[in-house]
Amino acid sequence: MFRIEFMQRALALARRGLGYVSPNPMVGCVIVKNGRIIGEGYHHHFGGPHAEIEAINNAPESVIDADVYVTMEPCSHFGKTPPCADRLIQEKVKRVFVAMKDPNPQVNGQGIRKLAEAGIEVSIGHLEAEARELNRFFIHFVSTGRPYVILKAAITLDGFIADTTGNGKWISNSQSRSEVHRLRSQMDAVLVGAGTVRADNPQLSVRMVKGRNPQNIVLNSSGNLPPESHIFTNGTILVTAPDAMTDEKKIRFESRGVHLLEDNGSELTPVLKSFATMGLTSLLVEGGAEIFGAFTEQGLVNEFLVYVAPIILGDGIPLFRMRGRTMAEAIRLSGQDTKICLREL
Amino acid sequence: MFRIEFMQRALALARRGLGYVSPNPMVGCVIVKNGRIIGEGYHHHFGGPHAEIEAINNAPESVIDADVYVTMEPCSHFGKTPPCADRLIQEKVKRVFVAMKDPNPQVNGQGIRKLAEAGIEVSIGHLEAEARELNRFFIHFVSTGRPYVILKAAITLDGFIADTTGNGKWISNSQSRSEVHRLRSQMDAVLVGAGTVRADNPQLSVRMVKGRNPQNIVLNSSGNLPPESHIFTNGTILVTAPDAMTDEKKIRFESRGVHLLEDNGSELTPVLKSFATMGLTSLLVEGGAEIFGAFTEQGLVNEFLVYVAPIILGDGIPLFRMRGRTMAEAIRLSGQDTKICLREL
Repeated sequence: MFRIEFMQRALALARRGLGYVSPNPMVGCVIVKNGRIIGEGYHHHFGGPHAEIEAINNAPESVIDADVYVTMEPCSHFGKTPPCADRLIQEKVKRVFVAMKDPNPQVNGQGIRKLAEAGIEVSIGHLEAEARELNRFFIHFVSTGRPYVILKAAITLDGFIADTTGNGKWISNSQSRSEVHRLRSQMDAVLVGAGTVRADNPQLSVRMVKGRNPQNIVLNSSGNLPPESHIFTNGTILVTAPDAMTDEKKIRFESRGVHLLEDNGSELTPVLKSFATMGLTSLLVEGGAEIFGAFTEQGLVNEFLVYVAPIILGDGIPLFRMRGRTMAEAIRLSGQDTKICLREL
Repeated sequence: MFRIEFMQRALALARRGLGYVSPNPMVGCVIVKNGRIIGEGYHHHFGGPHAEIEAINNAPESVIDADVYVTMEPCSHFGKTPPCADRLIQEKVKRVFVAMKDPNPQVNGQGIRKLAEAGIEVSIGHLEAEARELNRFFIHFVSTGRPYVILKAAITLDGFIADTTGNGKWISNSQSRSEVHRLRSQMDAVLVGAGTVRADNPQLSVRMVKGRNPQNIVLNSSGNLPPESHIFTNGTILVTAPDAMTDEKKIRFESRGVHLLEDNGSELTPVLKSFATMGLTSLLVEGGAEIFGAFTEQGLVNEFLVYVAPIILGDGIPLFRMRGRTMAEAIRLSGQDTKICLREL
């Protein structure tokens, strides 16, 4: 009998891989015999063993006739590791409960078919919504060939990301900024435009919480940013228009370890596709108004994460630089109104 | 012994008067004998009996030696009704627990003194914060001589109250609009500027919920609005600059039952003071950007109530028309950042 708490446990295990498994999905696995867990595993990091293999290896007793709870369809192909489906067949497990199919068009359903053909009972769709939410970056990445994009902004109550002089330090409070640092540690890459580099000279690193740094990316089609900006450290990607920079300037960037990518940058889809080919499944877009406007107008934002601070500026840099729309043409997002009630200090 | 649940009950009773007692405070009263409630009362409507009197009258047995829980200091002066303190003394109650003193400078402490001098034990400050929150309109009104001002706005995620054509129908969803109708039924008055009347031709009445209509007020210093606008019904107040209108136009307004108030309107404090002299203790300011800017710049907003809708316009009418401030000069309100997370539809 399927028991939901075991799949919940498998999802919780899967989540531990957040930020470390990309471009693979997060996967967790629990092996159950006689109503109790005898083995647990999850995909820890890209290139490491898959969740099912770890769970089998961790079980102190035989897994013959056991029930296997796994958050994504077991793989059926040789990648960095041998196919998990083969191992489950070889171990003679009885049943496999799967939260969701592998969304990768090249895999979709083959692992499940292999198990079923070997006489293992397979049932799918258990806590599927939760599993899909957990792996939404991966699902979007394999189905569109683009990274999942989260637009993150901190705005005043009246919708500005900075005052008229361009100063936005700090609109959000330190708790919000910590949350953003945590999010950076979970995303594959963080992107800003040239205006933000010029105004804030940010590092875009993870400092307020423990965690790894994301890949940094700067869009600067004119290539006019100074190579000395904090963001240009070893491994940063700089996207410029073809022939925007002299060879001498290119060398100055490359000597700092910056990867140069040439693209005219007005159409963002090809730029995102080239990020995807580098294995970047998720992208946090952190500003500024031009970049926010371009991603939004081109329909490339999957999630808008906006911190509204209890501050009024009256005028300043708007959230989006984009063409104004009428109410009829407005971009409508999911979700309800958010009620904000603030008092005079 | 003081028991908090009786004061909580008295506060819950007091709250039933919301929207009906102004310019009096909401007051609730519970009379307790041998650990159980023998009488309850609250101030139902302006001019009606006070909470203490109702509670005494509702008690089916003698209140001699009883404990009285009352959310505001009993009155000690003849108003529309005889003083409650006198009645409590006459009834020979034993103790009186009071949530808060009457903030009215002319009363403050006299009711309590009277009771104490008659040998009744009095103790004050029980659930005082809750009582002050409940009567914040009244407290502000008697201590400043101005109504308590709530600024209510519905904005897009990017901070606009309407598109560039002035159309803001509808930014907020029907649940938010219902909440606003409820709030109108609880406030003494609702105010808009001429731009909003011109753009939306609103009624500002309570339609989406059951409740009484607030006093309607329009600020239109030039006096150029058409008397046929929906808002100009019997009892509406129109504030114009002195001599802004011809006698003929004044007569057109007055024939619709509109009260004309002359004030140049650039300084809002005197205007608010004249509203207070009419007994208006609370004012809901509903737009537009000019009015929001003026109230905010003059520091006359007590609460900002903003509904942020999952809509992006890119450009439009800003929340406030006011001078831009630098981060250092920004208006800072109480409270934390609000995190809004929205998905693509």
